[in-house]
Amino acid sequence: MPSTNTITSLPEIDLVMEQSMQAFLTYKKVHATDRAAFLERIAFEIEALGEVLIRTTQEETNLPEARLLGERGRTTMQLRMFSKMLLEGSWVEASIDHAIPDKVPAKPDIRKMLVPSGPVVVFGASNFPYAYSTAGGDTASALAGGCTVVVKAHPAHIKTSSLIATAISNAIEFCKMPKHTFQHVAGTSFEIGKALVQNSHTSAVGFTGSFSGGRALYDYAAVRPKPIPVFSEMGSTNPVLLLTDALAQQAETIAAQYAGSITLGVGQFCTNPGLLIAVASEGLEKFKITLSNAINQVAPAKMLHEGILKAYEINRSKALATNGVTAISNENIANENFATPIIALVTGNGFLKNENLKEEVFGPYAMLVECADMEELKKVWNTVSGQLTTSIMGTDKDFENNPDLIEMATMIAGRVLLNGVPTGVEVCASMVHGGPYPATTDSRFTAVGINAVKRWVRPVCYQNCPDHLLPDALKEQNPLQIKRMIDGNPYQ
Amino acid sequence: MPSTNTITSLPEIDLVMEQSMQAFLTYKKVHATDRAAFLERIAFEIEALGEVLIRTTQEETNLPEARLLGERGRTTMQLRMFSKMLLEGSWVEASIDHAIPDKVPAKPDIRKMLVPSGPVVVFGASNFPYAYSTAGGDTASALAGGCTVVVKAHPAHIKTSSLIATAISNAIEFCKMPKHTFQHVAGTSFEIGKALVQNSHTSAVGFTGSFSGGRALYDYAAVRPKPIPVFSEMGSTNPVLLLTDALAQQAETIAAQYAGSITLGVGQFCTNPGLLIAVASEGLEKFKITLSNAINQVAPAKMLHEGILKAYEINRSKALATNGVTAISNENIANENFATPIIALVTGNGFLKNENLKEEVFGPYAMLVECADMEELKKVWNTVSGQLTTSIMGTDKDFENNPDLIEMATMIAGRVLLNGVPTGVEVCASMVHGGPYPATTDSRFTAVGINAVKRWVRPVCYQNCPDHLLPDALKEQNPLQIKRMIDGNPYQ
Repeated sequence: MPSTNTITSLPEIDLVMEQSMQAFLTYKKVHATDRAAFLERIAFEIEALGEVLIRTTQEETNLPEARLLGERGRTTMQLRMFSKMLLEGSWVEASIDHAIPDKVPAKPDIRKMLVPSGPVVVFGASNFPYAYSTAGGDTASALAGGCTVVVKAHPAHIKTSSLIATAISNAIEFCKMPKHTFQHVAGTSFEIGKALVQNSHTSAVGFTGSFSGGRALYDYAAVRPKPIPVFSEMGSTNPVLLLTDALAQQAETIAAQYAGSITLGVGQFCTNPGLLIAVASEGLEKFKITLSNAINQVAPAKMLHEGILKAYEINRSKALATNGVTAISNENIANENFATPIIALVTGNGFLKNENLKEEVFGPYAMLVECADMEELKKVWNTVSGQLTTSIMGTDKDFENNPDLIEMATMIAGRVLLNGVPTGVEVCASMVHGGPYPATTDSRFTAVGINAVKRWVRPVCYQNCPDHLLPDALKEQNPLQIKRMIDGNPYQ
Repeated sequence: MPSTNTITSLPEIDLVMEQSMQAFLTYKKVHATDRAAFLERIAFEIEALGEVLIRTTQEETNLPEARLLGERGRTTMQLRMFSKMLLEGSWVEASIDHAIPDKVPAKPDIRKMLVPSGPVVVFGASNFPYAYSTAGGDTASALAGGCTVVVKAHPAHIKTSSLIATAISNAIEFCKMPKHTFQHVAGTSFEIGKALVQNSHTSAVGFTGSFSGGRALYDYAAVRPKPIPVFSEMGSTNPVLLLTDALAQQAETIAAQYAGSITLGVGQFCTNPGLLIAVASEGLEKFKITLSNAINQVAPAKMLHEGILKAYEINRSKALATNGVTAISNENIANENFATPIIALVTGNGFLKNENLKEEVFGPYAMLVECADMEELKKVWNTVSGQLTTSIMGTDKDFENNPDLIEMATMIAGRVLLNGVPTGVEVCASMVHGGPYPATTDSRFTAVGINAVKRWVRPVCYQNCPDHLLPDALKEQNPLQIKRMIDGNPYQ
């Protein structure tokens, strides 16, 4: 088994990035079918880690076996999805404009496609030790795009990260990819992260985690002599509108649905619905009672690690200590290692007056904002804009009464949900897991689904290039048989 | 004729951006066909300005009538191109993933498309008073994308800018668009630009101009509480490789071609070939003589304005004063209001030793770098990476001898040209007018061609949304008859 060569010291970062750039010069030329086989092999090697991986991660993260098995499946599925994307090939957005020699002035032959940007640095998430960490969505999409990857392991699951890094190294060896196509860096000092982001060879950065961490990386990149894109996916309170007719019709059903969503995975999802907004009504009273009862019945559970539990307790205490905020579920803490789910209540006016209530409380927590009317509801909603998701629970009548809500929702979040819960992010081409700042630092891209590859590439056009010197994707006879734009006509 | 309401004072900027945001809330909902008609009408109103526009711009920019007529044609053509794009409709990248209720867990219905980001601030270019200024590519693409626009007029052609602004205002009135869909701001203080970029309503910025200006705007945006994208298109030396067999075969032809390209429009194009790189050879000697002779025969001409002429003289003098640099064309200055074209010569070693030679000399100037061998040529080429374009003049034999050059070129520039000149940027779907920093601040996008619209939009997905509440682009029956991705299959 090859060593994962985990780097932990600052002076080694320059070498790591130099190696990543050297590997990139070879890896970017690897044929798509070989790159596809490499991604498949990584999935295979991860599965081959077997029970050791699952047990190691259970110890490091407190996540239950069923969840980890599911997440491992999602991780290998993502790798295979990008492999399929490479074999299909149209993702390079090939576009051909033929020469028109008798135009005045003559129009030259111009052909465009996407090319990889260079070495990518990935900072893994603590809450997704597989699917958004070492071999997760960022790594898989960057490798698919032809970029080399340097992963900064999350210190909360370093053993898991090292195991996955070994799996990738095995795949590199098996598929004869350049040795430094993937490298693994550990260490807890923020200087290591800073050095990775500011190294001249780094072409882009992916991050999933806290607002303070994500913004710091963005700032490091922005002051570089040569700025680079940073895709930080940060906090989100995922506001949910509970409309009046929906509550009148089925307060209990919605309450049960949301009790499940708020406490799913001990509330440790970035799409956790942390803010419920409704106008005072009879239905809302029924909703409150059902939700409180359901939440009171959810057993306290261990969070990912002690630091997250502590932050949860501090943040929810801060919220509950705010003037006008009350708890409507039981507030007692069952066990010092366990997180108790809780629902807080505040009026619309109280929410608008207290800036701190807008902040995410990461954990099994939601704040219900009870508004005087629809106008106040919209004000509360707009004041928290910049979200991964926003959801609306409403009947046909609700939407007839408020025809502007869906249009408003598109300005607030990257994903707009109707009559559902935001937890559970489907991996598909239409998914947008992203959103206006501060949900992410770049709302033009998604971190989930095949379009995640678009973060690591840039377009290049070739003018007047003889056919035999063009990349296959742009050759006249279309040897890859991909969909292309021809002379401005989409998708021929 | 409605007033253009040109704003020149700092305190008014807040109002301008507030008005832009209010107009955006209406304008973004305007149907694509009406938006298309609006762009058509702007083109019509610009043409209706007639001779007054051309004469005014001639006075302000010293550009000849024929050039201005051509550029006006390019400007109205671009507006009509975006209008056509809106009528065709596929540019929104609609993608539909149907629900799979019996999947475990159930897959919800998810549909994605691009939506406008918000008010856009545009800083026009001095060298393109029409095509990349007030109603130029940035404005046209932003309006097409559904964004409102605030243009900061270039002080070098404020009268031209005001005339065009009036034309847009007329189109707004005629098409009954929100009054503040477009606004025009003037003033020379940098604080006005800073205030526009840092206003909380601004969603994105487009800029064409100098490196110092473009970087300053980028930096203003990066330190905002909510960072926004800045698309600065800045300087470029557009390096050209003159390969040995090509020079052996046709040194004179290439020299004549490049003499024309270097002096076209008094060298005031961002794609002006400012750096010629070749290996010493007999052919190169012939090339030098022909190029010098041709350049000596080009009459000195007026530049856009005095400031640009002064900068040209200072920058070329600085380059020529560098150790090892000589002029190989006549250096005398014919008239203090006129720019004399000039070719400088330096060895590869001399170039690599003097950092300042990498800087763009904006004007009818090129530096020929004579290298000892191909290795040195590649070193020089790589050292200036981050370009809008790079060109290679080579025969089949040259490319057989150097099979890695085209691949290398894609890392250096956004547009790679073979056997041609970089001046002349074709407006088409395959064009990439962009490139790695410092050519632009965001190499993932183009400023020319229909894809320029992608700078002003972001994706949003709708989950579980009833068909009648979806935007037309995402409705099941495809009422707009656009190309869409269905269930992960591209372009159905």
